[in-house]
Amino acid sequence: FSSKLPETAVSIFSQMTALSNAHGAVNLSQGFPDFPADPELINLVTEYMQQGFNQYAPMPGIMELRQAIANKLEYLYRVQVNPETEITITSGGTQALFTAIGTVVQPGDEVIIFEPAYDSYKPSVELFGGKVIPVRLQTPIFQIDWDEVESLISEKTRLIIINNPNNPTATVLAQEDLLALERLVVDRNIYVLSDEVYEHIIYDERVHQSVIQYPGLRERSFLVASFGKLLHTTGWKLGYIIAPPFLTTEFRKIHQFNVFSSNTPMQYAVARYLEQQGRYLNLSSFFEKKRDLLVMGLQETRFNILPSQGTYFLLVDYSNISDQDELSFAQYITREHRVAMVPVSAFYSKVYNQQLLRICFAKKEATLVSAIQHLKEL
Amino acid sequence: FSSKLPETAVSIFSQMTALSNAHGAVNLSQGFPDFPADPELINLVTEYMQQGFNQYAPMPGIMELRQAIANKLEYLYRVQVNPETEITITSGGTQALFTAIGTVVQPGDEVIIFEPAYDSYKPSVELFGGKVIPVRLQTPIFQIDWDEVESLISEKTRLIIINNPNNPTATVLAQEDLLALERLVVDRNIYVLSDEVYEHIIYDERVHQSVIQYPGLRERSFLVASFGKLLHTTGWKLGYIIAPPFLTTEFRKIHQFNVFSSNTPMQYAVARYLEQQGRYLNLSSFFEKKRDLLVMGLQETRFNILPSQGTYFLLVDYSNISDQDELSFAQYITREHRVAMVPVSAFYSKVYNQQLLRICFAKKEATLVSAIQHLKEL
Ligand SMILES: CSCCC(=O)C(=O)O
Ligand SMILES: CSCCC(=O)C(=O)O
Repeated sequence: FSSKLPETAVSIFSQMTALSNAHGAVNLSQGFPDFPADPELINLVTEYMQQGFNQYAPMPGIMELRQAIANKLEYLYRVQVNPETEITITSGGTQALFTAIGTVVQPGDEVIIFEPAYDSYKPSVELFGGKVIPVRLQTPIFQIDWDEVESLISEKTRLIIINNPNNPTATVLAQEDLLALERLVVDRNIYVLSDEVYEHIIYDERVHQSVIQYPGLRERSFLVASFGKLLHTTGWKLGYIIAPPFLTTEFRKIHQFNVFSSNTPMQYAVARYLEQQGRYLNLSSFFEKKRDLLVMGLQETRFNILPSQGTYFLLVDYSNISDQDELSFAQYITREHRVAMVPVSAFYSKVYNQQLLRICFAKKEATLVSAIQHLKEL
Repeated sequence: FSSKLPETAVSIFSQMTALSNAHGAVNLSQGFPDFPADPELINLVTEYMQQGFNQYAPMPGIMELRQAIANKLEYLYRVQVNPETEITITSGGTQALFTAIGTVVQPGDEVIIFEPAYDSYKPSVELFGGKVIPVRLQTPIFQIDWDEVESLISEKTRLIIINNPNNPTATVLAQEDLLALERLVVDRNIYVLSDEVYEHIIYDERVHQSVIQYPGLRERSFLVASFGKLLHTTGWKLGYIIAPPFLTTEFRKIHQFNVFSSNTPMQYAVARYLEQQGRYLNLSSFFEKKRDLLVMGLQETRFNILPSQGTYFLLVDYSNISDQDELSFAQYITREHRVAMVPVSAFYSKVYNQQLLRICFAKKEATLVSAIQHLKEL
């Protein structure tokens, strides 16, 4: 049997979570909250299940939820999006990314990604016969050099994938970045896949820049978003994708044969829940408190803290503490000090050690406090 | 933009359901129940959500559910399946089919399918660069001629897709069919994808023949199953796939980047629900009563009824009533007599009219009675 993804092994998230569980460690590796979802939201799911909303949703998602998303976009970004032709509900952000890549990438196409990068981009591109052209970003600020990007563009370049706010770097793109990207693609046959699943988690009064606000980008971009990140329900596997009608049409053809549709009672519950305007507006301050608590605690350790501008992740540099490579050191800390974190090297296609670990702080205060206690031992 | 699936339009299920809704028709087109799921099952989902089971499940699914499936297979078929290495939970049967096709099919590979065929097989194969070799089956019994199949096998044949019990023909494969298939593939580099989502809906004391019972098939087959069909919850999008370890390993690589994992609280609920041994055993008699009610009613119409041996579908021949092609006639009946059914021509890659319509009888008694009233007008 000839493997299509010979290099793919168990993901770093599954690996570290398993190791964490095996050692009873505090799990700050895989990105998911350890606090509850809103009981009101849970009650809504129950209500819809009891009312019999348990059969196939329409393939693109229920209109109530698509309309709620359009309302949000209008309210936040002052953009009009047509829920009929531009919004599709997906079984999570990952499924949206995979299906969008499958929609665009043909054998031989080149796809530019920025590393460190979320682990699904590269294998998804390769599965559909594309070739990844990685741009390596570096500490401390992981700045994109857009001239470098331009120099990598060829006749074969078909897609550029950005992730903003960025997992794992916790950086956010500035207006100038979006403008530079727009200039790069407008006159070329290049599409953009913008992974904005952390759009509502952004700190220090920063304002999220979405591709949907830039006309030259909007007309050629997929925007991926996640209800799991918004509602603390990563296990409900619900997200959505926005794209202009011609891309949405093609996306839905593949979506239809991939999953056909997404969870019905949960779509109804989320739609009703979002109707209450502005549910997403206090997510940043909610997570900012957690970030600040973590930063304060880490200042009493020997780690150097990199700034977290968005997402519920934060990077630490351990060059003061150890010379070990990132994976070994992450495993060592999990085993010996019972805190699990993710080696940033895992987000580069060629393993690249910068003595950085990623911490997820979407956790209860008590969890963070306990992790800090352990990390002080180092 | 170059479409990867230029021939794909809105699916016949979505089309007919939309037309049905527009005309207030009785919708016997798309295959889904119009009666409630078990309140006990719904309560279990609520319980797990309330207990906080709302974050990512493990990528291959929770072990409790995989174990419940292994127990079922042992009980029903006396086969031992390893839940760790052979069972993966998916976001519905369709996602399992799509991902399995993506796992096996390389550009240039040939895939044999039997038509009429479920509408996702062909475009999924083509998306991954494969070529579909359709075997056209015909009324009245849609018998497979295995010598014909053998004559279509080439160096490039990589996969054979079967669907048993069959949607839309409502026929089931006999032991001799499975044995013939086994003989065909054992010494060749050919894999089998067996869509058995209606495994528990089989009539008149027939016994379902699963690929898992045939050693030569089991070692090279994917078996796809659906909780939506089992539990009357098509909108929960939960299913699973069974394959030998070497195929499961490759399947999971793609599954991980496609959806990562499936709905967490619903997995836990289904696992607990299935623990009560034999939940699936009375599904056939439940649906057989509906089939018999429909057949009795249809005998008072001018339709000729084809035998339904399994699934919750039944075909009728309308050659006594009209000369119209199937799609036009199905649309006409929806508009004028307010019953929506599916033209069987939609399941052939080259439209092929046999004056057949497919009726879904997964409906309340009152729904079926009302549909029959309308059909008597014809
Ligand atoms: C889908 S598991 C990974 C979760 C996540 O987004 C992360 O930890 O980066
Ligand atoms: C996923 S919509 C189609 C449902 C179904 O299986 C059918 O009607 O054949």
